[in-house]
Formats: sequence, structure tokens, C-alpha cells
Amino acid sequence: MASPRKLSTPQDYADLLSRYDTWLFDCDGVIWSGDEVIDGASKAVDFLRGHGKRVIFVTNNAARSRPMLKKKFDRLGIAATEDEILSSAYAAAVYLKNVLKFPADRKVFVMGMEGIEAELDTVGIQRCGGTHPEDNKFLPANDYSSLVEEDAIDPAVGAVLCGFDMHLNYAKLCKAYRYLTREGAQGPVLAGKTGGGCHFILTNDDKVVPAMGQLWPGSGSLATPLIDSTKREPIVVGKPHAPMLETVKSLYNIDESRSIFVGDNLHTDILFAQDGKMDSLLVLTGVTKEEDCETEAIWPSFIMDNISNIVAAETGPSRIGAVGVDGTIGIHASL
Amino acid sequence: MASPRKLSTPQDYADLLSRYDTWLFDCDGVIWSGDEVIDGASKAVDFLRGHGKRVIFVTNNAARSRPMLKKKFDRLGIAATEDEILSSAYAAAVYLKNVLKFPADRKVFVMGMEGIEAELDTVGIQRCGGTHPEDNKFLPANDYSSLVEEDAIDPAVGAVLCGFDMHLNYAKLCKAYRYLTREGAQGPVLAGKTGGGCHFILTNDDKVVPAMGQLWPGSGSLATPLIDSTKREPIVVGKPHAPMLETVKSLYNIDESRSIFVGDNLHTDILFAQDGKMDSLLVLTGVTKEEDCETEAIWPSFIMDNISNIVAAETGPSRIGAVGVDGTIGIHASL
Repeated sequence: MASPRKLSTPQDYADLLSRYDTWLFDCDGVIWSGDEVIDGASKAVDFLRGHGKRVIFVTNNAARSRPMLKKKFDRLGIAATEDEILSSAYAAAVYLKNVLKFPADRKVFVMGMEGIEAELDTVGIQRCGGTHPEDNKFLPANDYSSLVEEDAIDPAVGAVLCGFDMHLNYAKLCKAYRYLTREGAQGPVLAGKTGGGCHFILTNDDKVVPAMGQLWPGSGSLATPLIDSTKREPIVVGKPHAPMLETVKSLYNIDESRSIFVGDNLHTDILFAQDGKMDSLLVLTGVTKEEDCETEAIWPSFIMDNISNIVAAETGPSRIGAVGVDGTIGIHASL
Repeated sequence: MASPRKLSTPQDYADLLSRYDTWLFDCDGVIWSGDEVIDGASKAVDFLRGHGKRVIFVTNNAARSRPMLKKKFDRLGIAATEDEILSSAYAAAVYLKNVLKFPADRKVFVMGMEGIEAELDTVGIQRCGGTHPEDNKFLPANDYSSLVEEDAIDPAVGAVLCGFDMHLNYAKLCKAYRYLTREGAQGPVLAGKTGGGCHFILTNDDKVVPAMGQLWPGSGSLATPLIDSTKREPIVVGKPHAPMLETVKSLYNIDESRSIFVGDNLHTDILFAQDGKMDSLLVLTGVTKEEDCETEAIWPSFIMDNISNIVAAETGPSRIGAVGVDGTIGIHASL
């Protein structure tokens, strides 16, 4: 298998620039790396905006709300409005509201942190669990009898939403298990009713998450006790899964043929774009190396060392198709 | 596929009685059901003892120590000594000691409760984690920096042992993750050294556990965040896995050809016996129904409605082979 097209000349960059109106960006490994901005990323974003491009940031982060994420953009000097930031926490809330039409009189049981709660509040979905003090304390084994009581669970709950939760505990898992396995739990979630159907939603299935200079078990690992015990498969919202793209479409009026997804991870970002039939640009500032592309069935439309290179684009008259060093054009771009 | 041999006459029972010297019993669904003794089980155990049979109770219970389990036997009127009770908690401790030769100067990080700790103490293995107050409190997200410190983990740890833990929390998962992924973690665990190899042991992989009249996520579900995030496969000690039988052999001097495993669960008990090339008796007082045997590739040597039926055995001269109603003899028995 040949390597994908590596872009490396001002002409390549100019062709890329002219071809796409909407630039969707993954963050970690593209814009920043942990708490450090990636060199030149800020200028690249400004450059795209200067050429009239629309910029949207799509992250699997499920711990923070968009206002919290916005502060990180500000701190790292990346221009972004809250509306341009789509996290898996916000996407999960929007997906419940816009795609699943979650009834206004039902509640979501949250196995996650403040960020998820804030986004549910934003879209006007009721919630319980989450950071509630009752669910965030050390519960001695001999106090578990309280969990067995009928009133330990809220019959208005019609979804369990799992994300990253540093306060995960066994009692939360038991409550979520009860919601997901009650009678009729796999049926429809109806307005004006209680009990019955209960959606099972997972913000993202990243198995590990970088935190404080280490890796820790991530959202995708924390939900597995529920997947294993309930034998139910959750709807996973985050990249590389389809609900994130459905959410992008429900929020932003984009022309997919004139949009490109920029990411550093073959298995989340590039697969996400590939499954969504959107062109993609792999940058080599994160987890995927150029040689990884030779052995995988996931195929970026283009490769570039660093998103900062885009500022070297020749700004002559735009042409059709972004031409790679080997003279071929991007696979989706050529369709 | 024909049904396995159902035993139903006094002659059947007498043949079974004469064929086996050691009777290994699963508990839940055979001897008791939750907190209720199964009708006639006590008499059946006494009857076997009265005929000079050796009786061993093999349970996947990972929450209780043998003295704690012995109290349950006493309360339900089932005669048993502590030595006759093998739980997955005790089996894990014995497996570490006898099979893995765990060094006396290394420690086990416990993700489990008092029962596991007591059994490690019994065999003289050092431990940390478990019920330690530091690991069993509500840790606010902004206090997690303490977990990142070098002294948050104990370099003497050479194994992570996971069982049922009603006090499971995210901080414990993070600690276990660090032990299991440190440099050389998949290498040997050496005496007189620190760091390096770290065994990954799971008491049992039951996905749910009956508790207080409900089902809750079980040991096998609680370990999945670590399996998913570390990409390591644990050694699972409990039925149906081989380490439980290796532990039985390392503790009891049994003649396998004259031993039978009695259980109610095709997927744990009967598979355990089948994989261990031991004859098995399925009783119908628990989870498996007779018709389940027609569709599964797991094959009990014999089926009986209730272990209590054994007391109806004719006690004439013993004969060779236990003959089923259709005239066939048990598959392993016939080898």
C-alpha cells in the first residue's frame, strides 16, 4: 500500500486552503499537547480565519463544559468562541435533545462531572446523579441497604449518561445498573411517563486520558462495568462514532464537500472523517506517525507535518483539487 | 443433540454415590439460594459424609473470608469446616503463594474487601490498598495531585488483586493502573527488588452478583476498566477458570477420576469441570434449566433435580458406572 499524500510545498498548502471552507479541528495533538500550545497553531487558526474560513473545534473531552474549555483556548492564545467549541459532553447533551428528542419532563442520571451537568443545563435537560453530594461520598458497605429502597432511584430517569468521572464509585454503578436493567429499560423513553425505557449514552470511548502528566483510565474504560453487567451497548457520542458528526450537522450548517477534519489520531479523528465521508488532514504533531499510515486501513486524505505549515500557502488564484507531492489528489477530494 | 443423562431413580443415585469419593460443591443454587438454604441440602451433605465421602465447597465469592463464609454455613445448618471451604478470595491468595511463588518481601495491592485481605494474611502475603482508609474516602478531583506524587504508590507492590469491592472508586483504579503499566510491569516479580513486574489477578469474572435481593455489577465487571485501559489480560482465579482447579489440587490430595463437581451453572460450574476433565453433576435448583443443556456445547456428566435426591440412593453393593435413564453412562465416567 502506498503512503497517503504528504503536503509539503507552498503550492500544496494553497490548494488545500482553496478547497475547503470549513475546517474542523481536533484539539489535543493538533492545537495543543496537554497544557502546551503546539508551535504555530495559533497563527494557523488566525490565518484560516483571515482567509474567511470557518473554524470549529471538536474534542472528545467529557470533563469540561464549553466555558471551561474556552478558558483553555484563551490561556493558550487560540482565538475561539464558545459556539465554535464542540466537546463530547456538549455533543451528548445536544444529541439527547436534538436527535433522541429526550422529553422535557424526564431526567438524565449522570455518571460524570460538572462539565456534563453544565451542558445538560444549557440545552434544558433535567438531570440527577453527577456531582450531587449523596452520590459523591464514601458509602460504607453496611449502608448499602439504602440503595435497595425503592426511593433510592428516580422513576423520572430516562437516560444514563456516562463520561469521565474522577468521583466514580460503586454506588453510582449500582444505581446506573438499576436504571439500565429495570423492566422495559430497552423500550422507548416517553414523555408524561416514568420508568420504562432508559437510554444508555457514553460521551466518548477513549480508554485512557492524559491527566497531570500521566495516563489514567478514561471514559471508555469507566463505562465498561455497566456494559459488562447490563449486557447493553451504549450509544457512543464522541469521535470516531457517528453521533458526533450528526451533532455537528444539527448545530452547524456545513457543506460537507467543502469541509475538512484535521486531527492527529488515525483511530479517532481520521476514522471519524472517513466514516462520515468527509476529507481529512492528518498532522504529525500528536499520536500518529507517518509510517502508521502504511499499515492501517484508515486513510487520511492528506498528511502535513504541522498545521502551522498552512501559513506558507501561496495565495495566488485558487485552483481545483489539492495536489500531493506524488501528483495524486486526495481520495475524497477526487470523488 | 440429545439431552444429557438425567438421574431420577434410587438406583441412579446409588450408582452415582458409589462412583465418587470426593464431592466438590458450588454453593449458591446448590446448597443455598441467596440467604435461604435449599430444601434437603443439609441432609444431602450429611448423607454423603455418612457414606465416607469427602466434601469440599468451591465458591466464587470474593467478598468474604472463609471464617465469614463458615458463619453462613452454620447459620443455614450446613455442616462444614473452614478447611472444606474454598472461596475465590482464598484461592487467589493460595494461587499467588503456591503457584506464582509470590515473594514474601513484595506486596499485593488489593482492589477488594476484608475477605481478600484476611485470606492474604492467612497465607502470609503482604498487602496494601484494600480497606485502608486512605483508599476509602471521597477524594475531590482537585486533590488528585497527591496521586501523581511518586510516594503515592508503593514500589514493593508486585501484584494487583481485584475482587468484589463495594468501595471501588476512581482513585483506586488510577493507583492500580499505575502499578500495572509501570516500566517492566509485565516482567517477572522478583524477591529483593522493587518496581518491575506486577501480576494482574482477578478473583472471579462473574459479571453480576446477587446482593440484598437484587443483582449488582460483580467482580468481573469491576475489573474491566483496568483491562480496557491497561490492555492487559488478568489471571482469573475463580470458576470456570483453571487456576481454581490448580488451587484445589495444591490444597487437597484428590483423585480426579473419583471426584465430581456439583453445580447449578452450566457456564461456570459445569464448564469448570469439563475444562478440568472432571465429571460433573448439574442440579436444577439454580440458574440453569434442563432445556438449556440442549442448546449449549457445555455438557454435564449427569443431571439431577436437587442434590437432596441423593439420600434416596439404594445402598446395596456398589457397582461400576452411574447409569442414566437412557442407559448411557456419564461422558467422563465412561472414558
